[in-house]
Amino acid sequence: MAAKITSVTTYDIRFPTSRMLDGSDAMNPVPDYSAAYVVLHCDDWPDGHGMTFTIGRGNDLCCAAITAVAKRVAGREVDGLLADMGATWTLVTGDSQLRWTGPEKGIIHLAGAAVINALWDMYGKRAGKPVWRLLADLSPAEQVALVDWRYLADALPPEEARERLEDKASGKTARIAELEAGGYPAYTTSAGWLGYSDDKIRALIRAALADGWTHFKMKVGADIEDDIRRAHLIRAEIGPNRQLMMDANQVWGVEEAIANMRRLAEFNPGWIEEPTSPDDVLGHARIARAITPIPVATGEHCHNAVMFKQFMQAGGMGFVQVDSCRLAGPNEILGVLLMADKFGLPVCPHAGGVGLCELIQHMSFLDYAVVSGRFENRVLEFVDHLHEHFIDPACVKSGRYLAPATPGFSVEMLPESLARFRFPDGPEWAR
Amino acid sequence: MAAKITSVTTYDIRFPTSRMLDGSDAMNPVPDYSAAYVVLHCDDWPDGHGMTFTIGRGNDLCCAAITAVAKRVAGREVDGLLADMGATWTLVTGDSQLRWTGPEKGIIHLAGAAVINALWDMYGKRAGKPVWRLLADLSPAEQVALVDWRYLADALPPEEARERLEDKASGKTARIAELEAGGYPAYTTSAGWLGYSDDKIRALIRAALADGWTHFKMKVGADIEDDIRRAHLIRAEIGPNRQLMMDANQVWGVEEAIANMRRLAEFNPGWIEEPTSPDDVLGHARIARAITPIPVATGEHCHNAVMFKQFMQAGGMGFVQVDSCRLAGPNEILGVLLMADKFGLPVCPHAGGVGLCELIQHMSFLDYAVVSGRFENRVLEFVDHLHEHFIDPACVKSGRYLAPATPGFSVEMLPESLARFRFPDGPEWAR
Repeated sequence: MAAKITSVTTYDIRFPTSRMLDGSDAMNPVPDYSAAYVVLHCDDWPDGHGMTFTIGRGNDLCCAAITAVAKRVAGREVDGLLADMGATWTLVTGDSQLRWTGPEKGIIHLAGAAVINALWDMYGKRAGKPVWRLLADLSPAEQVALVDWRYLADALPPEEARERLEDKASGKTARIAELEAGGYPAYTTSAGWLGYSDDKIRALIRAALADGWTHFKMKVGADIEDDIRRAHLIRAEIGPNRQLMMDANQVWGVEEAIANMRRLAEFNPGWIEEPTSPDDVLGHARIARAITPIPVATGEHCHNAVMFKQFMQAGGMGFVQVDSCRLAGPNEILGVLLMADKFGLPVCPHAGGVGLCELIQHMSFLDYAVVSGRFENRVLEFVDHLHEHFIDPACVKSGRYLAPATPGFSVEMLPESLARFRFPDGPEWAR
Repeated sequence: MAAKITSVTTYDIRFPTSRMLDGSDAMNPVPDYSAAYVVLHCDDWPDGHGMTFTIGRGNDLCCAAITAVAKRVAGREVDGLLADMGATWTLVTGDSQLRWTGPEKGIIHLAGAAVINALWDMYGKRAGKPVWRLLADLSPAEQVALVDWRYLADALPPEEARERLEDKASGKTARIAELEAGGYPAYTTSAGWLGYSDDKIRALIRAALADGWTHFKMKVGADIEDDIRRAHLIRAEIGPNRQLMMDANQVWGVEEAIANMRRLAEFNPGWIEEPTSPDDVLGHARIARAITPIPVATGEHCHNAVMFKQFMQAGGMGFVQVDSCRLAGPNEILGVLLMADKFGLPVCPHAGGVGLCELIQHMSFLDYAVVSGRFENRVLEFVDHLHEHFIDPACVKSGRYLAPATPGFSVEMLPESLARFRFPDGPEWAR
């Protein structure tokens, strides 16, 4: 008998991060980092573990949406699903009635991400490979077949995508060896949260400098005078040559963003992230033109590959910040990596939260191995929170992510964490 | 004691329209028109009734999201909420944790629409006015204060919006009288669904012609040869001078849309609606340039005012098809109406489904009364389905909507319909 997906379990997991103001920014003052977590049970080892990320309320809605979306794969044979993950992606995201509630955006797409991520976890475990190696070991034709090209082909035809992958194929083995030996460059957001005191920021930056970090990110957008004061403080600590990125978390209007960034330009920002509405492609493009040479970065709320396509076409995105839980898993992210490579844009993914580092690291390793083949201007976000809840946590040493080596997608949580932080009945919340 | 919102009830209402292929199109082959319906109970008459629209599965998710969003207003004093509906809009849509699951898109924004619509229904009933009159009777400054301008001001500063409204104010009384006497022009989609046989289409068109309709819409996108055949059939029935609009419901890629519309151009389409992904502003703009003079129409899946802003800025939208349940109620729609007026674009709202005609008619009447002041090129969609479930249904005579006259937002359903079509336990579904 072929193995089937026999049942689906979701877990509403929430960590009370708002108590310490970890993760606070101008738009998200009191986040409780949360995972809408799913296990696809299989009648043959292994199960698949996946998740999407939220910041608290609404995590229950994502769990309910996962249950609805996962009906598309429940009862099906695993071999058939994994043999054509391009078709499986369309199956998972393509329920014609559920689609109305997106399409390809919001809660229903976050749920799709969780299910797709769980399927890739299962696939990696069955293949005995971490997901980035599983993906890197596919042929260019197989990689291209993972992506839904319907709305992307006008910017990058699939035939051209395959040719670009084939052009890079000769160096793939060497690049994989390089990644396994030396890892992937990272930057830290752990020091710059808006809710932290000056003393806490100073202490965290000094500790990060001692750990070898060279790229730092600070939150801005609550009050411009306070932003300037804190930028002075951080720039004084890190010196003129290390990178200082800024993140406004969507709070400004277009004209306001331009005016504020003209004032913050003196601190030589490496980028300004989410200066306005994450949907405003043309607004980002206008800001980018007005504040050049400061680059604009965005993507953590960019809800599907069609939006990334337009940000690239319009010049609204100097750095591409894909997110493993906002986009519906590796299939959709691979389409974005391929478009970014064509447009000559570095991919610097969004991470942090809970589980985002664990998932997205696979996509940056994949990007270097088979798509861009370059480290230049590329840094992967790292936030040193909540990794202790995972069986195979992301691991950073001296400012670099180490290559994931354990089979799967690194996002399986410890059973005791699932029990303790389950909302609202786990002991962390029930007390 | 001031009246408060004492409790919230949601109803998952679904109509089994897929059994007859009513509403079938290339992307949505088997829709069950559904309302995620909410009642905001008040300890003083009246309650507020609102809804958002879906096509079946996922309606339960919207109901759950409405419950989460409605917590923002539950327990609050009604007078305070209604006295500053701009601030109330921000309150309803602005929960910092729920916002992550959008922002301003997908299920959480659909839920916001239902709650905002219910508040306006309550407001209209308390004021003794249909919502369009309630809104039209506000001053320009009050109207402008309803809209969240943060992400729109670069295209239309609020001061300019107020000036535009003031410029039109002198003719308002006469236009209201004109609307109350003569109604608002409509077009029909009842005949053109993809799942209907040729004989059924022919019979429906002949009936519609006899009823005085002059604008017709057909669905395209399943197969181009079949589209051409059906376009021949419909054009032969309606003659060369009546309008024939086409709707592809998002199924084409950008290049595919251009190629197909070049073939369909011989039927002189009044517009092509949703030729590609509803998120693809730049794709729509490219299609519009390539197939000129055929206009491009879109908006029923345009998830917030920021997207409308960009469609207008980029030239991707020749007709503005706002939807009362996709956008978060009259506040957000008014922002779009004002931008459309500035950009010189006619607003021809999306309707049909269930409840959409009832809600959106108020916004077209408002558009004529205070914003555009014009009928030219403006037609409001009408589909003759499911109106029998409403206490104050939309009413069309000789191709024109009659002005709503009953206090409220026209979307209160009959108690027996709420009972019969409740999913999954109402008698229509339990059998």
